[in-house]
Amino acid sequence: MKSLDRIFDNRRVMKSAQGSPSATIAGTPSLSSLFDLVSDEMSLVEDWLKSNLIDDNTFVEELLKQIFHAGGKRIRPLIVLLSSKATARETGKLSRLHIILAVLTELIHTASLVHDDVIDKASVRRGQETINKKWNDRIAVLMGDLLFAQASICLARIMNPVVVGIYGQVLGDLCSGEIKQMRQQFQTKVDWDAYIEKSVGKTASLFSAGSHSGAILNGCSNETIQNLKDYGLNLGICFQIVDDLLDITGSQKETGKAVGSDLRNGVVTAPAMFILEAGDANSARLKELIDTRAICEDAGAEEALAIIRNNGGVEKTVDLARSYADKAIESLKDIKDSSYKDGLATLANYVMTRTT
Amino acid sequence: MKSLDRIFDNRRVMKSAQGSPSATIAGTPSLSSLFDLVSDEMSLVEDWLKSNLIDDNTFVEELLKQIFHAGGKRIRPLIVLLSSKATARETGKLSRLHIILAVLTELIHTASLVHDDVIDKASVRRGQETINKKWNDRIAVLMGDLLFAQASICLARIMNPVVVGIYGQVLGDLCSGEIKQMRQQFQTKVDWDAYIEKSVGKTASLFSAGSHSGAILNGCSNETIQNLKDYGLNLGICFQIVDDLLDITGSQKETGKAVGSDLRNGVVTAPAMFILEAGDANSARLKELIDTRAICEDAGAEEALAIIRNNGGVEKTVDLARSYADKAIESLKDIKDSSYKDGLATLANYVMTRTT
Repeated sequence: MKSLDRIFDNRRVMKSAQGSPSATIAGTPSLSSLFDLVSDEMSLVEDWLKSNLIDDNTFVEELLKQIFHAGGKRIRPLIVLLSSKATARETGKLSRLHIILAVLTELIHTASLVHDDVIDKASVRRGQETINKKWNDRIAVLMGDLLFAQASICLARIMNPVVVGIYGQVLGDLCSGEIKQMRQQFQTKVDWDAYIEKSVGKTASLFSAGSHSGAILNGCSNETIQNLKDYGLNLGICFQIVDDLLDITGSQKETGKAVGSDLRNGVVTAPAMFILEAGDANSARLKELIDTRAICEDAGAEEALAIIRNNGGVEKTVDLARSYADKAIESLKDIKDSSYKDGLATLANYVMTRTT
Repeated sequence: MKSLDRIFDNRRVMKSAQGSPSATIAGTPSLSSLFDLVSDEMSLVEDWLKSNLIDDNTFVEELLKQIFHAGGKRIRPLIVLLSSKATARETGKLSRLHIILAVLTELIHTASLVHDDVIDKASVRRGQETINKKWNDRIAVLMGDLLFAQASICLARIMNPVVVGIYGQVLGDLCSGEIKQMRQQFQTKVDWDAYIEKSVGKTASLFSAGSHSGAILNGCSNETIQNLKDYGLNLGICFQIVDDLLDITGSQKETGKAVGSDLRNGVVTAPAMFILEAGDANSARLKELIDTRAICEDAGAEEALAIIRNNGGVEKTVDLARSYADKAIESLKDIKDSSYKDGLATLANYVMTRTT
């Protein structure tokens, strides 16, 4: 699945080309060209992540370094920086507060990954051993807490009560999104509202906070702030749907986790939901595999993956993800033109093509 | 160990009586009389903890209710309310912000307990099954995160950057305190600075935040704020030392955990440290029990407890705790007289007598 867009869609590229400055880009959008737009600021963010972390304890410092040197795509800081630059009074000019905002957004994301790995008993992340695998669950719980704490300190430094409120809500959404997912495991009743709501909690809430908080700091109009909030929300939902898709179509080498691992854990997402709601023989068989927990074993998982792949589960999910990418791009239409605005639109197209 | 003070100490009651308004109280100080001083405000705090919690998910709501209905001593909100009332412009009169401050302080404490129970694989807390035992580690990690998130939202509502910074630091201190403790397990080299530092991180940092943030909101002088900060710091260190003592002297029925459970986990605290630093046969034997991990087994733990109890480990630890209680009371001397100030001093004496 090198590029979902290229494989599945001329129609969709046509559709998203309407009224969007960057949707005319053909093929795979380049992420590196987006990072070029914010290169100075991103290196400040990297410096901060790798050095400005609380703690005088050498062991903790080592762990933190390990976490941030392991990399990560830095999509969330990119969203913060692009949207902040697109709405800066003097276009492209940011303050120290915007850098802190980008750092804090990545810290929250990283903290939640460290805890997710404990929750999922994951052993590999970003090509490296997870903290829980290399050390133990105790260290991983505390390191996640420490990263959340570091994020709280960043939030304090921003000194904007509205932004503090937004990020506080994100923290709540992240947890309740995960708990909702946990409670929905092995459920075969299709509930799209619950699925989108869970995706907002797990992913889109933070994307949205990152996409519109910079505009708040820039003193933008409520309309601009709302547009960027919608952009992040839709982009985040799209991102989560693509994540769910990669569980079905991705390669272990690229995603770093076994194909179908969500499915094996009973996490029923869009690709399976499209099959389940069809009401045919495939629906019945997939439901049976889930209900009997056969899906947790190799043979059952393989059969479920084949049913999903061979009956339009993937294509329908791509369409669903694309509809949110389009909504994200559409949300940008009243933002004043700039290379940064174009960058945000390109990012939405990139999210559709990502393989990791 | 119904009352450490009564058993071990006429001398100390004499000592602490110098210059302190409440230290003349004989016997066990009454905690309920302190709660009477803040009864209206404390019921607002309770209401908030039990109902104003984020989440529209019934399951999560149930879990949160279970956590807060299980009780807890509410020592930290008591400190916030007493110190806020003692320094209010119109003595005793608080605003909504002080209530939020008290709620947030308890939320952070509760969140850290939920995660500690995961870390320690504890099965009972406050006489009830822990979340990790009743459900699982995954739910407990997320519930702890949710409580921290709720605390962040409260912090945002206070809208005071200095207070936000203080509590952000507390969150970091809590994690690094626990990690330090983990790294010091089974260490027999006596390092009092490291021990006190760890106690500050684990406990006193939050006590101190709670004791002086109300004065910041009240617009008090820097001197008053510093005095209350010192009060909380010393009281918190005292509280942690008594906690460590209860591991040696407490009854399982009262503390809700097996006697010597810290010791069995290789957590070497003041009572053991006093024996280890003596440089005699008892030191050597205790060191051997720890080094060989014999202390993790029933026979070894029993022998270690006996060595500590029979050779002054308990008495010396009581003295150490008392010295911090005295420092806490001493820190109050320049605070203007009121029943709330007396309450804070009484609280320091209560901490010395607590059995749970």
